Amino acid sequence: MADSVPGGYNGEILRVDLSKERVDREKIDGEFCRKYLGGTGFIVYCLLKETRPGLDPLGPENRLVFALGPLTGLSLGGSARHTVGAKSPLTGGIAKAEAGEYWGSQLKRAGFDALIIQGKAKRPVYLWIHRGEAEISDASHLWGKATKETQETIRSELADDRIRVAMIGPAGENRVRFACVMHGLFDAAGRGGMGAVMGSKNLKAVAVRGDRLPPVAGSDGVKLLATWLKENLDLMKSFSEFGTGGPMPRFEKLGNLPVRNFRDGGFPAVDKISAETLKQTIRIGMDSCFACPVRCKKTVEVKDPPYQVDPSYGGPEYETLGALGSACGIDNLAAIARANQLCNAYSLDTISTGMTIASAMECYENGLLTQEQLGGLELKFGNADAMLKMIDLIAVREGIGDLLAEGCARAAESIGKGADAFAMHVKKQEIPMHEPRLSKALGLGYMVNPHGADHMDSMIDIFYSSFGQQPVLTIPDAVPIGLEPAHLDDIGPRKVALFKLIQSKRIICDSLVLCDFLPYSYTQISSLLSAVTGWETSVAEHIRISERILTMCRMFNVREGLSEADDRLPSRFFSPTRNGPLADKALDVEEMEKAKHYYYRLMGWDDKGVPLPERLEELGIDHLTSKA
Amino acid sequence: MADSVPGGYNGEILRVDLSKERVDREKIDGEFCRKYLGGTGFIVYCLLKETRPGLDPLGPENRLVFALGPLTGLSLGGSARHTVGAKSPLTGGIAKAEAGEYWGSQLKRAGFDALIIQGKAKRPVYLWIHRGEAEISDASHLWGKATKETQETIRSELADDRIRVAMIGPAGENRVRFACVMHGLFDAAGRGGMGAVMGSKNLKAVAVRGDRLPPVAGSDGVKLLATWLKENLDLMKSFSEFGTGGPMPRFEKLGNLPVRNFRDGGFPAVDKISAETLKQTIRIGMDSCFACPVRCKKTVEVKDPPYQVDPSYGGPEYETLGALGSACGIDNLAAIARANQLCNAYSLDTISTGMTIASAMECYENGLLTQEQLGGLELKFGNADAMLKMIDLIAVREGIGDLLAEGCARAAESIGKGADAFAMHVKKQEIPMHEPRLSKALGLGYMVNPHGADHMDSMIDIFYSSFGQQPVLTIPDAVPIGLEPAHLDDIGPRKVALFKLIQSKRIICDSLVLCDFLPYSYTQISSLLSAVTGWETSVAEHIRISERILTMCRMFNVREGLSEADDRLPSRFFSPTRNGPLADKALDVEEMEKAKHYYYRLMGWDDKGVPLPERLEELGIDHLTSKA
Repeated sequence: MADSVPGGYNGEILRVDLSKERVDREKIDGEFCRKYLGGTGFIVYCLLKETRPGLDPLGPENRLVFALGPLTGLSLGGSARHTVGAKSPLTGGIAKAEAGEYWGSQLKRAGFDALIIQGKAKRPVYLWIHRGEAEISDASHLWGKATKETQETIRSELADDRIRVAMIGPAGENRVRFACVMHGLFDAAGRGGMGAVMGSKNLKAVAVRGDRLPPVAGSDGVKLLATWLKENLDLMKSFSEFGTGGPMPRFEKLGNLPVRNFRDGGFPAVDKISAETLKQTIRIGMDSCFACPVRCKKTVEVKDPPYQVDPSYGGPEYETLGALGSACGIDNLAAIARANQLCNAYSLDTISTGMTIASAMECYENGLLTQEQLGGLELKFGNADAMLKMIDLIAVREGIGDLLAEGCARAAESIGKGADAFAMHVKKQEIPMHEPRLSKALGLGYMVNPHGADHMDSMIDIFYSSFGQQPVLTIPDAVPIGLEPAHLDDIGPRKVALFKLIQSKRIICDSLVLCDFLPYSYTQISSLLSAVTGWETSVAEHIRISERILTMCRMFNVREGLSEADDRLPSRFFSPTRNGPLADKALDVEEMEKAKHYYYRLMGWDDKGVPLPERLEELGIDHLTSKA
Repeated sequence: MADSVPGGYNGEILRVDLSKERVDREKIDGEFCRKYLGGTGFIVYCLLKETRPGLDPLGPENRLVFALGPLTGLSLGGSARHTVGAKSPLTGGIAKAEAGEYWGSQLKRAGFDALIIQGKAKRPVYLWIHRGEAEISDASHLWGKATKETQETIRSELADDRIRVAMIGPAGENRVRFACVMHGLFDAAGRGGMGAVMGSKNLKAVAVRGDRLPPVAGSDGVKLLATWLKENLDLMKSFSEFGTGGPMPRFEKLGNLPVRNFRDGGFPAVDKISAETLKQTIRIGMDSCFACPVRCKKTVEVKDPPYQVDPSYGGPEYETLGALGSACGIDNLAAIARANQLCNAYSLDTISTGMTIASAMECYENGLLTQEQLGGLELKFGNADAMLKMIDLIAVREGIGDLLAEGCARAAESIGKGADAFAMHVKKQEIPMHEPRLSKALGLGYMVNPHGADHMDSMIDIFYSSFGQQPVLTIPDAVPIGLEPAHLDDIGPRKVALFKLIQSKRIICDSLVLCDFLPYSYTQISSLLSAVTGWETSVAEHIRISERILTMCRMFNVREGLSEADDRLPSRFFSPTRNGPLADKALDVEEMEKAKHYYYRLMGWDDKGVPLPERLEELGIDHLTSKA
């Protein structure tokens, strides 16, 4: 097995050293594939193996990795995704973010399983990958340009409209710590500041065009699951009809919708900004990632000023509707859609952008930021124009924007005077749009997720309870553990074990790479992987691989100075919201700490969350321990 | 799910209180089935739930449980088995032993999933179970009789030759601490002294006849695996051709064959007692358990004195060829076969019998037992006649036999003068026929197995190395952990994790109940269970269930006073054998202790091997904690 590469893999890595202007191809073998899969697993391996402790995330040593997995590019809903990762300029730990679109499937078809970028170009460049080759081209003329113009120019220069482009706008160039990498104009690898890392390397874009079929062993297994999905597309009805954010009004009623920087509870205006209303008003269509029948991606258009929206920038996802909507107290849908467009054009993560602005709004309302500091802006909750202006300022790091471009945690540190009470983050990454006071397991997820608070890794029972959906559907093994919908308050040992299981499924999805939204059970995913690769594998092996990858992420974070103290929620969550459904609900510090320590134990880490040496040996990753 | 019973289960338990002469039927529900499966899981649940700490294993409070599982009685090789369990009079902890034959499949067809026997009959009785009913009948006329006569008499009384009988001979009646329960004349539920428990209840036999088809949901899945087995019967070639013990000469060469109470190494006479020689000499046929195409059960016949053997008592398995052969220094095959017949007639576990006698032989050779104490017998290694005579004495507890009937550990304690150095046991149960000095993981298995040293629960890499068999065949998930054949010396964290995985598969087999020998992979077993029950289940869930059951066994042992100190190997293994292939090989105390503690950690137990309260809660078994 050691030498042959299984189905699903090209077995080739593309490495680009921008300092040396050098392009190399490297092999991976079957043993490597089975141990780390791809995606997140590949990324953390690369960082542990190739970088020195304490590296500057915005320095040339950092690796920016675009990693596919064995499922990327299959003709199957959910398999269009890939993962982008690096040491995060936002958290200082490991970062990874997935994106859909067509970019990943094109890279697979161009003959590669991953792209590793290191060094720093002397001046702006872009990469052009096709037919197993890569060229480094000048991008000086693209620097400073928005994503749309960037993509159009590259396609026109290369005379091919079907080229797929991963790129940054001005925010990435300016190293905004939460800049994202855009894939096309509305698919972001959003979190962790991957756009800033790309900008720090003077890399404007990576254009890809593939021309060969992806390597698959058992196409019957793929067809089988594709047929199953087709027959069960009803399970994705809300996604197909509304995209993300269908149940926003229900979320608001439950207390799951963050309002005014997680300070308030109710948001009666939710109906003005919900995905349902969006469908009835500004939406003009639905788009999709490669090969996905769900078609969950909104396209919106607003022709009338002041909040015009160009449909080529897509439309706001749920996280965006929350972060740039209710979290900022804003109920103007067109303004939110406009903000979404700005973020996509500048390459800004909408969650961190919205939550950083929300934090600044609360600082302003509490007198910690003055109107003068804000360049005359009245940055109050609900002021949509101020919010939009702030996005501009952040992207170009102008005035107060330069401070906010550091993210809410660093900004609060600079502001002082207790501003940190309003900085809603874990590991300096802004908290996404689900309420931990409503679901303790979600809170635990925010705490221990290696990438900081994240919307993709922790959504354990919110959905089961709010949709009344049986967990058996996606988590068959959870049944005997005893998960029942609406056990939101439970964070005892059984719940922690269930959380670990769901986290395991998520990290496997991020390593295969597969969309978290698709309703495949863990068993189905295992069978699919067996079919594609020819491995006789099982959920048990995948749980083990997830433990390996999560422990590697932990190793990296520990190496970079993160500790147990960074696995903490903001103090705000230990008091109730001002009003709304959670007005008498708050988390308990001791209870959450207890759950955290039980999670450490289940992971084979010590009381401080440091992986035990024996555990590293057991998982076969002791050789990745830093010698420095 | 809570109320409906899945396929594979009747949902009915038969409870017989011999003190009250009362027969009851009780229901189990689907949730119970999925949580504990059956077999070992059922037994330990019953003991934890129904008995008080410190109960006398030979008192009326002890439960003698015959537990089937969802696979028992399927038309599929390996599914004829059931598990017999109780608090062990030998170890003082939990005991369980599996048996094949037709008895279990008949109980399933009689409408039950388990039989719980409690109390004590006023005089000898036997049970007669058929058509969903059970009768308690007088057995005074059977008391003192050998198994063959017992079975014949019952069949004739009930006028049905196809009745299957579980029973004891004189050894069980006399509460020899290692008496077994015989099923027919050559299938023993051998270990832990279940025959003594049966004897203590004045229960001579349980006769069963079933007449309905077993409840199965997905018979297609069963057929699928049955077909696979048929097509892959080559994998069982050695079993079909020789029965157990095919590779005995290879074992001897490797050092795996115990010689003279584990004192010596080489046994050049191995060829005189091997299963291969047996085939060429005294074997007259092969028999099988219900529905099994492997047919691994030997039938032998010896007509000439002094060692006549009646073929109805079957023939010696590998463990018997070792324990009553090389371990006693005996190389006379007919004598071993005769000893086997005696054990089956008396209902004695051949392993404990052989090893207790071997221990006495070494005591005698070292002057710790005199010829006078031995009633004139010259109990030297190699003296077959003395060995045979000793079996008689043990069964009826006559003379020195009364002492040895207590097992080697208790006998050594009585003898004193350092006799414990020759008592080869873990938790007072005699060590079976594989050498821990050869395989450290095997040694760990003997140490931590809840039932004491056992031949069924620990045979990790002996086979891979001696057969050159790829572990991928039966343990697919082991591949990424990195098991390679012949890594016998490794007992690092990865090996401990692999050991735990294999132990998990074994305990699941013992709970389903399924023969450990059949070459089904863990994944195949999971799929089979899904097919039979209709559950969407996976190896991951089964690992979890195995953790639950093993932790329950541990809870029971801790409750009954066993501790970390009982998870130890005899000191002999920390020195090399006198001669042979292991003459320069010995285990290291510290290394084995380290491995043991890592195993505890993987199980979620504390440093003393006591399950953590959070772990009990996580596994949903905290309600089984004793209040006393």
